[in-house]
Amino acid sequence: MEKVTAHDLAKKQKEISVAEFFERNKHILGFGNQTRALVTSVKEGVDNGLDACEEVNILPEIYVEIKNNEDGESKLIIEDNGPGIVKRQIKHIFGRLLYGSRFHSVRQSRGQQGIGISAVVLYGQLTTGKHAKVISKIQEDRPATIMELAIDTNKNRAEVINQDIIHWDKPSGTRIEVSIIADYKRGKRFVYEYLQSTSIVNPHAQITFKESDGTEHIFERTSEMLPRKSVEIKPHPYGVELGTLIKIAKQTKSRKLSAFLKNEFTSMGDRTANAVCEKAQLEKYLNPKEMTREQFLSLHKAFKKVKIMAPPTDCLSPIGETLIKRSLKYETKEISPEFIITASRPPSAYTGNPFQVEVGLVYGGNLPMDANVRIIRFANRVPLLYQQGGCVITSAISSIDWRRYGLDQKSGKGMPSGPAIFLIHVSSTLIPFTSESKEAIADIPEIENEIKLALRICARKVQHHIHKKVKREKIKEKFELIKKILPEIANKSSKMLNKPLPSLDAVITKIMDVVWIEDFIEYEKISKKVIEEPVQMTLLDNKSKQHDDGTITKSKIKVINYKRSSQKFNLYVIIPEDAIVGTVKPKPTNINKNFIKWNLDSIPSSEKVDINFELAGLEEGDFDENDIYVEDINPSYVIGADKWEGE
Amino acid sequence: MEKVTAHDLAKKQKEISVAEFFERNKHILGFGNQTRALVTSVKEGVDNGLDACEEVNILPEIYVEIKNNEDGESKLIIEDNGPGIVKRQIKHIFGRLLYGSRFHSVRQSRGQQGIGISAVVLYGQLTTGKHAKVISKIQEDRPATIMELAIDTNKNRAEVINQDIIHWDKPSGTRIEVSIIADYKRGKRFVYEYLQSTSIVNPHAQITFKESDGTEHIFERTSEMLPRKSVEIKPHPYGVELGTLIKIAKQTKSRKLSAFLKNEFTSMGDRTANAVCEKAQLEKYLNPKEMTREQFLSLHKAFKKVKIMAPPTDCLSPIGETLIKRSLKYETKEISPEFIITASRPPSAYTGNPFQVEVGLVYGGNLPMDANVRIIRFANRVPLLYQQGGCVITSAISSIDWRRYGLDQKSGKGMPSGPAIFLIHVSSTLIPFTSESKEAIADIPEIENEIKLALRICARKVQHHIHKKVKREKIKEKFELIKKILPEIANKSSKMLNKPLPSLDAVITKIMDVVWIEDFIEYEKISKKVIEEPVQMTLLDNKSKQHDDGTITKSKIKVINYKRSSQKFNLYVIIPEDAIVGTVKPKPTNINKNFIKWNLDSIPSSEKVDINFELAGLEEGDFDENDIYVEDINPSYVIGADKWEGE
Repeated sequence: MEKVTAHDLAKKQKEISVAEFFERNKHILGFGNQTRALVTSVKEGVDNGLDACEEVNILPEIYVEIKNNEDGESKLIIEDNGPGIVKRQIKHIFGRLLYGSRFHSVRQSRGQQGIGISAVVLYGQLTTGKHAKVISKIQEDRPATIMELAIDTNKNRAEVINQDIIHWDKPSGTRIEVSIIADYKRGKRFVYEYLQSTSIVNPHAQITFKESDGTEHIFERTSEMLPRKSVEIKPHPYGVELGTLIKIAKQTKSRKLSAFLKNEFTSMGDRTANAVCEKAQLEKYLNPKEMTREQFLSLHKAFKKVKIMAPPTDCLSPIGETLIKRSLKYETKEISPEFIITASRPPSAYTGNPFQVEVGLVYGGNLPMDANVRIIRFANRVPLLYQQGGCVITSAISSIDWRRYGLDQKSGKGMPSGPAIFLIHVSSTLIPFTSESKEAIADIPEIENEIKLALRICARKVQHHIHKKVKREKIKEKFELIKKILPEIANKSSKMLNKPLPSLDAVITKIMDVVWIEDFIEYEKISKKVIEEPVQMTLLDNKSKQHDDGTITKSKIKVINYKRSSQKFNLYVIIPEDAIVGTVKPKPTNINKNFIKWNLDSIPSSEKVDINFELAGLEEGDFDENDIYVEDINPSYVIGADKWEGE
Repeated sequence: MEKVTAHDLAKKQKEISVAEFFERNKHILGFGNQTRALVTSVKEGVDNGLDACEEVNILPEIYVEIKNNEDGESKLIIEDNGPGIVKRQIKHIFGRLLYGSRFHSVRQSRGQQGIGISAVVLYGQLTTGKHAKVISKIQEDRPATIMELAIDTNKNRAEVINQDIIHWDKPSGTRIEVSIIADYKRGKRFVYEYLQSTSIVNPHAQITFKESDGTEHIFERTSEMLPRKSVEIKPHPYGVELGTLIKIAKQTKSRKLSAFLKNEFTSMGDRTANAVCEKAQLEKYLNPKEMTREQFLSLHKAFKKVKIMAPPTDCLSPIGETLIKRSLKYETKEISPEFIITASRPPSAYTGNPFQVEVGLVYGGNLPMDANVRIIRFANRVPLLYQQGGCVITSAISSIDWRRYGLDQKSGKGMPSGPAIFLIHVSSTLIPFTSESKEAIADIPEIENEIKLALRICARKVQHHIHKKVKREKIKEKFELIKKILPEIANKSSKMLNKPLPSLDAVITKIMDVVWIEDFIEYEKISKKVIEEPVQMTLLDNKSKQHDDGTITKSKIKVINYKRSSQKFNLYVIIPEDAIVGTVKPKPTNINKNFIKWNLDSIPSSEKVDINFELAGLEEGDFDENDIYVEDINPSYVIGADKWEGE
C-alpha cells in the first residue's frame, strides 16, 4: 500500500465556511425533509417578524403566503409590519449565517442565533437555485428598498444581485419572498397548526395565512396589549463559566475588580461585590485585566460561596396561566375534558441564564385512554413541532412515576399513557436547543429539574382536585340524605305520636356540622362601555387596556354555616394574574394580582353569606372554577375550600 | 414608551463568530452536562486518532488517560500512533472550529465536520481557563513539536501561547492534553463503555484506558487487518441538489457539459452523460459556466429520468455481520440468549450520499421480559451513547408493529418491549447527525426506510428461525418415536410369531419419507502454522492475513436419505463474508464470499453423506449455526434446510 504522510494530509486541511457547513448539513437547521423544510421556513420568517415588531412596540401583523407549483417548488412570502431593516444591513441579515442582533443580548426573544432566516435563503438557493427577494421600509414617508440576494457559501457572505427602491403601501415593515423545494401538500397542515398555536400564545398578533389555492385563514388579534417586553440584563454570577469570566474581564472598561463585578454582572451591588472579593481573598482595587488565572479561579469559587440575589425576572416573558389554559381549551374543544390545571415555577437559572417553566395539564373527557399522553411544547412562546423524542421536556415527563397520578406507565418509567395532554413552556434568555433547528431543548439538569417540579405541582393539583371533588360529593350525598330522610322520619314520628312537626334546621346543622361553600360562574357578553371602573386601578394599572373582548366573568360564592356556633374566618379566591377585577361584594379586605381576600364577619349558625365578584379581560371559559381557600378556621370543618397556605 | 427605530436596531446587528456561537451553545456540541462532557471529549479525541491512523494504513494504538482532581477538573490525555500533524496545521486543527480535512471529501470517516477536537479545546478553556497542550511527531528520526494553545473565540482563531521541540519516544503520533470540568465519577463508566464498544467494532485497534486511580484497561487488538479503506468518490447525480449542481458547475475545470458530468460525478460514463444531455435537451458541448438556471433545472430533472448506476460502495466501510454478532455476543455474555440474527441492506443513497444499514438482533435468554427492548446504535463504527429518543433509529423501530414478531407493544406503535436487543449500524459518506454533537441521526426518509427494511429482514429471519426450530423438533420427536417404538413392536411380534427380527431401515424410511440434515459445529485452537492453505486464494485474496487468532471453526453436516428413492440435489451453506475457507470435503462446486455450494451426487435410499468444512479468521462462537439451503429437490421433503432462493 502506498505510504501516506502527514504532509499529504496537510494538503487536504481546509477551512470550512459556516454556510458551506450548513449547506451540507441542512437537516441540522430543520430542513431534513421536505415537509419539515416548509414548516421551518415559515417558522423562521414569522418568529423574526414577531421579534421585530415587539422590539419596537408595534402590535404585529404577520402575513404568510405559500404559492405551490407542480414541480414541488413553493414560493413563500412572509411580511411583517415591524420597523424594517436599514438598507446596509439587509444583505447581512438575510445573506449571512451567524449574523444578528439578539445573540449578544441577555433577554428572552424567539431568535437568538442569527441563523434562522438566512438558513431559509440558503435552503431556497440550494434547492431551487433561485435568489431571495427582500423588501424593507423603515419610515412612513420614504420609499422601500427592494433587494435580490444570493449567498456565496464559500465565503458566507451575501451577493446582492439587484437592488432598487419601490413604493410600498405600508408605514414600515419587511417582506421576504423565497422559493424552496417543499412538500406543500403534507406540510401545509403543520404550517396551519404552527400558526394557530403561535396565535394562541401571542394573542397580540394578527396572523394571516393564504394557502396556494387562495384560501385565507385569519388568526385574529384578541388582545391589544403587547406582552411584557423582556428587559436586557447582564449575566448572573452563578453559573458563569470560568472561561467566560476571564473573557468578560479582558473586554471590560472597568479598572477595578469591585467596579468590574458591579458593571458586568447582574444582582451585584456594593455589598455583594465586596463580600465576593473578601471570600476570594482578592483586593477590590485589583485591575481585572491584570489578574491571573488563579485569581479568577478564586473569584469564580467565591461566587458560589456568597449569597447573591436571584437574577431579575423581567428579562423573561412567560405565557401566563390564562393563555396556557386557553391554548389547552382550544386543543380540547371537541373533547370536553374533565379539568384543566396549570402551574408555574419561579424563575431559576442554568449557567447564568435565567429561565422559567410553566405547565398545563388537561385530563379526561373523550381523550383516548390507551394512547400515550400528548405533549405540547413551547419555548419562548414558539411552538416546538419536531424532535419531541430528543427534548428534555419528554425525558422529564418520562422520569416521573405517573402511576400514582392515575396514568398508565410501564414499570413507572417512560412515556405515560392515558387521557391527558401536557403543555410545557420554557422561557429563557437562552434556550439551550439541541441543535440550530430549535426543535428540542437539551437535557440541562437544572431545566429538567424545574420541569419535573412544575409537573409535580400540576400532578398534585390534579390529585387535590380529584380529592376535593370526591370529598364534596360524599358530603353532598350525606347532606341530601339527611335533608330527605330526616323530614320523613320526623313526619312519621310526629304522626305516630300525634305531635306537631318539629323544626329540623338545628338538627340538620348538628348532624352536618360543617361550613358549606358552593360556587357558580356565569359569563355575560357586554359592550365595552358597560364595564364598571375597576376597583383597584392603582394595583391593576395598564391591564385595563385589555378588557376589550366584552366578556364579564361573574362568580358567585355561597357560604352556609351548618355549624352550631357562629363562624368568623377569612376567605380567599385565586384569580388569574391578567384578569381585571370589577365589582366585588361584599367589600374585600385585599385584592392583588393573585387573589381576592375577605374577612367574613361572624356568620350565625344556619345563616348564609353571598359573595360576588366580576372579572374582565378574560374570554368565556378562561376562568371556569373558583379556587377557594379559608384561614382562621379549622379547614376540616369546611366543605368546598382548602386551607390557605399563604401566597 | 420610547420609540425604537430600525436605525437603533441596526446598531446592535453584529457578526457572531462560530467559536462564540458554540461557546454559548456548548450543549449542541455534546457538552450540555458534566458527565456527557467527559464522554464527548474522549470520543472526539479517540475518533480523530482512529481516523488518522486508518488514513495512513497504520494499525491504531490509542491511549486514553484521565486524571481527576477534587475540584471537578479532569485532565484528559489522548494519544495515537498516527502520522502526526505538520507544525503549521496544529494550531488550526486544535484551535479553530470548522477546519479539517474530511469535510470536503466524499467517503466514510468518523470525523466529518471539523468541529470535534477544537470543541474540546474550547470547552476546556471555557470551564477551566487552561490552555490545551498538543504534541505531534511526523517522522521517526525527527523531534516532536509541542504547542500550547488557546482559542480566541471572538475571531475563531488559535492563539499559540508557547511552542517548542521535544524528544518523543514514538515513531509518529499525536497527543493532546486538555483540562476540562467534568463529572469523572459518573462519567468514567460511560467512557469505559464507549471504548469497549469501539474496540469491538474496531478489532484492528488497540485501546488503553488509564483511570484516575491508575487502573489500566487494555482493549486488545484482535485483528491485524485494517478495515477496508473507504475510497473517496465524487457525488452521485441522484439526489444532488440543484443549488449544489450550479455551484459545482461554477467551480469545474471542464469546459463542456459532457466532460463536466463525467469529471464531477460518480457513475457517469460516456453513455450515461450523453443520455442525460439528450433527456435534458441540452447540447453536450455547452460550457457549464455559461448555462442558465433553467438549463441547470432541465439537467437536474434529466438526472432523475435516466437510469444511472448506483454509487460505488467502496466509499463505505460497514462493520460486517461477524463483528455485529461478536458485539452482541459480548453484550449478552451473561444472558445466554436464544439466538443472534443479523441482516444488512445493500448500499443506498440520500441526496447523493451513499449509505448502508446493518442490523443485529438478540432474542431471549435472561433478557428482561417486560422492559423496553435495548437499542445499541453505531454510526460509521462509532457507538452513539446519547440522544436515543431523537434518533431516526429509534423512530424506525417505533414505527414497526412488533407484536406479530412476538414483542409487546402498545397499539402497535412506539418502543416495543420484550427480551430483545437491537444493534443498528449506519455507515455513510455523510451521516446526517441531528446536531454537531453527533449523537443522533436525523429523520431522513431514505435512511428511516432502509433501517425499517433491514429490521424487517431481521424480524422475518427470527420468525423463520423459530419456525424451523419448531418444525425440526416436531419431526425429531416423531423420528425418535418411530426409532423407539417400531423395534419394540417388531421385537414383540417376532417373538410372538417366533420369526426372526426383520430389518427395519426400509420401514423407517417409508414412514419418515424425508431427507434428514443434521449439523454440528466445533472449535479448535491451533497455532497459526497448522492452518491449511485456503482452497480458493484467488477468491479470498487478502483475507488470509486475518487468520491469526488461531481458531478453526469446524462444521460437520450429515445428510441422511430417508426417502424411498435415491436423491440428488444441491446444498448451500451460508458463510460469513470475512471467514477464510479451509479444507472442504467433499469438493464443493462453488465457493464465494457468501456461501459454499455442493452438487450432491445421487444418495441412495437409507444412505448418508457427510459434509465437512473449516473456517478460519473467526473467533469461537462467531459462526455457531449452519444456515443450510437446498436446490433441485422439493424442500418440503427436507428437514434441516430451506429452499435456496438465490443470492
